[in-house]
Amino acid sequence: MNALGFAAQSAASPLESFAFERRAPRPDDVVIDILYCGVCHTDVHMARNHFGFTTYPIVPGHEIIGRVREVGPGVSRFKAGDMVGVGCMVDSCQHCKPCLKGWEQDCVEGPTFSYNGQDRQGGSITYGGYSDSIVVRDKFVLSLPGGLDPAGAAPLLCAGITTWSPLHRWNVGKDSKVAVIGLGGLGHMALKLAKALGADVTLFTRSAGKEQDAFRLGADHVVLSSDPEQMEAVAGRFDVIVDTVPYDHDVNPYMPTLALEGVLVLVGYLGPLGTPVNAGGVVRGRRAISGSFIGGVPETQEMLDFCGRHGIVSDVEIIPIQKINEAYERMLKSDVKYRFVIDMASLKS
Amino acid sequence: MNALGFAAQSAASPLESFAFERRAPRPDDVVIDILYCGVCHTDVHMARNHFGFTTYPIVPGHEIIGRVREVGPGVSRFKAGDMVGVGCMVDSCQHCKPCLKGWEQDCVEGPTFSYNGQDRQGGSITYGGYSDSIVVRDKFVLSLPGGLDPAGAAPLLCAGITTWSPLHRWNVGKDSKVAVIGLGGLGHMALKLAKALGADVTLFTRSAGKEQDAFRLGADHVVLSSDPEQMEAVAGRFDVIVDTVPYDHDVNPYMPTLALEGVLVLVGYLGPLGTPVNAGGVVRGRRAISGSFIGGVPETQEMLDFCGRHGIVSDVEIIPIQKINEAYERMLKSDVKYRFVIDMASLKS
Repeated sequence: MNALGFAAQSAASPLESFAFERRAPRPDDVVIDILYCGVCHTDVHMARNHFGFTTYPIVPGHEIIGRVREVGPGVSRFKAGDMVGVGCMVDSCQHCKPCLKGWEQDCVEGPTFSYNGQDRQGGSITYGGYSDSIVVRDKFVLSLPGGLDPAGAAPLLCAGITTWSPLHRWNVGKDSKVAVIGLGGLGHMALKLAKALGADVTLFTRSAGKEQDAFRLGADHVVLSSDPEQMEAVAGRFDVIVDTVPYDHDVNPYMPTLALEGVLVLVGYLGPLGTPVNAGGVVRGRRAISGSFIGGVPETQEMLDFCGRHGIVSDVEIIPIQKINEAYERMLKSDVKYRFVIDMASLKS
Repeated sequence: MNALGFAAQSAASPLESFAFERRAPRPDDVVIDILYCGVCHTDVHMARNHFGFTTYPIVPGHEIIGRVREVGPGVSRFKAGDMVGVGCMVDSCQHCKPCLKGWEQDCVEGPTFSYNGQDRQGGSITYGGYSDSIVVRDKFVLSLPGGLDPAGAAPLLCAGITTWSPLHRWNVGKDSKVAVIGLGGLGHMALKLAKALGADVTLFTRSAGKEQDAFRLGADHVVLSSDPEQMEAVAGRFDVIVDTVPYDHDVNPYMPTLALEGVLVLVGYLGPLGTPVNAGGVVRGRRAISGSFIGGVPETQEMLDFCGRHGIVSDVEIIPIQKINEAYERMLKSDVKYRFVIDMASLKS
């Protein structure tokens, strides 16, 4: 199946127009015409081979919204014309314990990621959402609730589920006090989702001037983490802290702001925490440092349905695909409020 | 009230015989003739001022078993002749939220510790269990279930509750897989308690030769943590790891042995973890690093009652108090199976 997209041909090349073949649809596949695709930090890391396992050419993109073009004979959940989403995964073994629980991200064999993954049947390398179309196994296609702006909904597929999953797992609701560290693609979604879940929400930020945006997005309070007095004032306060910082940072100053049995959840960073973690920070008060990695398919649908009921989408800046390289540079400088989304109609221009 | 004990007069002095005055009993106090007192690592740290806040002279000891000599007019739960225990705390504010929940160890004002603490009413410095008697507020006195050997029961008041609390908090039961890191005073109690709770129990140890003891104490499996093959074989296995290591160590190698949503609980160390904690170890699989610090009074009574029902005591080596300095040296070399307990009758010899 012919497809057109944007790809990097090497770690040093910018993304450029790329014509390629998608695998032929199988009976349980859904063929999707992509309308919008969000731009995630991971896309840059992978395009530039920061993790060392990129296969070139690479077509990034895993925050996909599109319209069903056609479905295989084995597909009953979708039909041509349906508005759908695809996130970070397009397949998994479907028989291991985590898969059976709907935790495909923890698939024992490893899930098939939406790009730079390997198709479980044909062995071909997966190409992501910076393209006009995609072929995805029906079980990994999400239903987009009516009424949600499709461009704004695209980032829900990664930034949304990544912040929803820890809020859900740690039972955030009306009586919860939640803090969010960092106001970017993930952070702004965490504010919106925590607020809609009924929590009292605080933004931790290192730089002043974000108050107005934070309040608009759902924060009830803003705490300047560089101000010891403000930090002291929230000692023992939070049940859950969603830490969206995407680079190495010191988590110790946040630990005393957790309530007894409170938990700080890392969602933006996977490397070593260079500043030694103080064991006392978790021993006293039975606090915890945990983490969370995207989320499973059923949980993603649940999040989308919740967003549908609450009218939640991401704050996005829509760009034509020709601006993707510039968008990467701006994203690395946090110069976006709060997510770039590619309008895939631009591919034809 | 006159008392006799053993005290350190400075960080450099050995413990020696020390005659002192206990505060006069108040209406809600219990006066206890001490029969046995366990020897905890903390005793050495405090006697030698390792934490920098020791007031001299210091009488250590917070694993106390004794017989009630008399009670104040306001005390109804105890009477002369009762066998009782006293742990790490002898008072707390009793009105803050944690205290009202029975989490006196988290008292917002700070609990009064059994030694080197400050009496909340008179302001006198508390003296611990290396002595012939003690005066304790009734709410902090525990009932010793009949049938338990009193010498063996003494370490339950610190080593017991310290390992019980995380097992309890993380819902360890018949379907749980629990691992314990380290086979010392805390570790051997963790094995016994986890086994009695019905869990499948594994000991992680760095040195071979501990298998026989571990199996006798309740372990179903022993894993040599220095052997990569053995570590690989238990990947994804444990719901809870109780980490009893009392010094800085690398927790990263244990993280992949946790099941999804599993938790490693630090109970023996309060300082900085010098080896950078890998965020990926908690992000993937929603694992967590938590901690636990002794336990509250209601929970301690619950643990004692559980031990009474299951006939659980510590494996102890009973010493006369005159051997306490030697015992400290041996304990620092892990040369004890698994807890020294002072027979307080020796004070009179």
